[in-house]
Amino acid sequence: MIGYGVVGQGLTSILMRRRAETVKDYGFNPKIVAVVDKGGAAINSRGLSLEKLEALKKKGSVAEDAAFGHPKMSALDVIESVEAEVVVEATSTNVKSAEPALSYITKAFKTGKHVVTTNKGPLALAMPALTELADYNHVYLRFSGTVGGGTPMLEFAKKCLAGDKILAIRGILNGTTNYILTEMAEKHVTFQQALASAQKLGYAETDPSMDVDGIDTACKVVIMANWIMNKKLTLKNVDIKGIRDVSLQALDEAAKRGNTIKLIGSIDGDKPTVKPTEIAKNNPLCVSGVLNAVTFVSEFAGEETIVGRGAGGMETASAVLRDLLDIRHKLANRLLNSNSE
Amino acid sequence: MIGYGVVGQGLTSILMRRRAETVKDYGFNPKIVAVVDKGGAAINSRGLSLEKLEALKKKGSVAEDAAFGHPKMSALDVIESVEAEVVVEATSTNVKSAEPALSYITKAFKTGKHVVTTNKGPLALAMPALTELADYNHVYLRFSGTVGGGTPMLEFAKKCLAGDKILAIRGILNGTTNYILTEMAEKHVTFQQALASAQKLGYAETDPSMDVDGIDTACKVVIMANWIMNKKLTLKNVDIKGIRDVSLQALDEAAKRGNTIKLIGSIDGDKPTVKPTEIAKNNPLCVSGVLNAVTFVSEFAGEETIVGRGAGGMETASAVLRDLLDIRHKLANRLLNSNSE
Repeated sequence: MIGYGVVGQGLTSILMRRRAETVKDYGFNPKIVAVVDKGGAAINSRGLSLEKLEALKKKGSVAEDAAFGHPKMSALDVIESVEAEVVVEATSTNVKSAEPALSYITKAFKTGKHVVTTNKGPLALAMPALTELADYNHVYLRFSGTVGGGTPMLEFAKKCLAGDKILAIRGILNGTTNYILTEMAEKHVTFQQALASAQKLGYAETDPSMDVDGIDTACKVVIMANWIMNKKLTLKNVDIKGIRDVSLQALDEAAKRGNTIKLIGSIDGDKPTVKPTEIAKNNPLCVSGVLNAVTFVSEFAGEETIVGRGAGGMETASAVLRDLLDIRHKLANRLLNSNSE
Repeated sequence: MIGYGVVGQGLTSILMRRRAETVKDYGFNPKIVAVVDKGGAAINSRGLSLEKLEALKKKGSVAEDAAFGHPKMSALDVIESVEAEVVVEATSTNVKSAEPALSYITKAFKTGKHVVTTNKGPLALAMPALTELADYNHVYLRFSGTVGGGTPMLEFAKKCLAGDKILAIRGILNGTTNYILTEMAEKHVTFQQALASAQKLGYAETDPSMDVDGIDTACKVVIMANWIMNKKLTLKNVDIKGIRDVSLQALDEAAKRGNTIKLIGSIDGDKPTVKPTEIAKNNPLCVSGVLNAVTFVSEFAGEETIVGRGAGGMETASAVLRDLLDIRHKLANRLLNSNSE
């Protein structure tokens, strides 16, 4: 595990609470052999105690463990030297260079390790190259937590529409901007006032650019277009317009038509875009507050919309667990295939 | 194929249009060896021509085929005598005795055939017994089209929340009643007026009891509770109240609170119920018109809502195709398992 913030800690917490069920229902009984945080690493090839990890983290860093701690040991050294089947990469997103996550993921692939990441940066900038590198090394790359938090939007599109074809995707994919637009429309406050309120509640960062300028939404559009519609896109292919210029007047005029304005990320054909868009209030996609929603337009099953919380440490951790179970399932099938040849 | 109405014809149409993709993507190249409608059967062990079936149906019955027609041959005789891997059962729903579908399904099981059904009757009345009988005969029973039409509500819950646990389910599961309640609330018309409008548009039957008395919704609650939450329920376990008594006054008062009234089917713990329920208009579950929606409350991923069209021949046919692909996938895995033993 590289990165041990809310998602990493959420994952250890879920694993502790549901160990009996994951063993019984999926034959899944993972050992966490190494954890890296900003203070260094804790390593034990026989498996670290999850209870102990939580306690250490509260004191500062997992590297402080007397027996298994390696203060200052780097993530790259850990990935290189520790034997593990999967690297869970949960460091913070960087859309300029995708580092250091990009190096962690490629190092993992080159040492034969599958990767589950919750990090949009490497995918937004280099997803076509990363999926190719994973294939080349015969390992899996999974990233359910990057879109929709715990809401399984990617899985829905991949697993629930077999035999059908997804023609277009439209989504409200960022809770912060949706909160701001909802506040503006409902409480009649300006963008600046709504942003301040979002920052006060912890929904927006001090530098809110990733959210309000549409970059976070664009990353998710890239991931969905590539994964679900077999495109080969990166962030630079997306036309992006954020919500800074959405005026109260525009919201009022939309309201008169029974509509409102939402930040919609979409891909229809080959044109990925992110922009403030007027939609009907009774459109299922039109969710309020910090909720996320996505509509898949399919050839036969019609339009389907999935709504859920788009963030949260525990929710995103549940997506990591799903990815781990998916990899386990794929490995079991691979084993069966090779045995029967 | 037993029953060749809008769903059966939708299925042949999808199979014709997507044959190249289903072969390429899933290795799935089915032959339809027998079709039964009210006029009799058409049978060809080498596979019936899908184009010809469509043309025959337009003339009256598939049994009129000069070479392969068997006028008056019964469905039970066809299921008994024809070699096939899967029976697609798409006759109309009967919630009193579940017949004749119940006999068709049990006959299929006893002759070693998997079943895909779009028929709620047998499941509502006898789902625990049917799943046991399928297990006993080592065959699969699938029924995605019975809930949500083409919207993969059952698959979402089963396939997209691995490692998590669904604690409760709440849904608007009947398009007709949702259309009526939406009309009443938005156009301020009485139940009788809205029902007449639904009948005129073909959304409601001449005898609207299945819909407006909540029975259709209750059938779907039974199916979801059994399939998703491992209950052993039948229709008689559900507390059912329909929408005949929902007044304009009650809708007006709900509206003053920012709410409205919807027919909600739910299971929370062990208590399945169907009843008109006041919910907030900004709740993602609160969809309008003929749309269906279901909210799954899960332990870690939070509340997730799926919205889609709840009916339609082509949509439901797409659910049948998904079930066929799922069975194919399971059979392939079963083969691999036995080879590697």
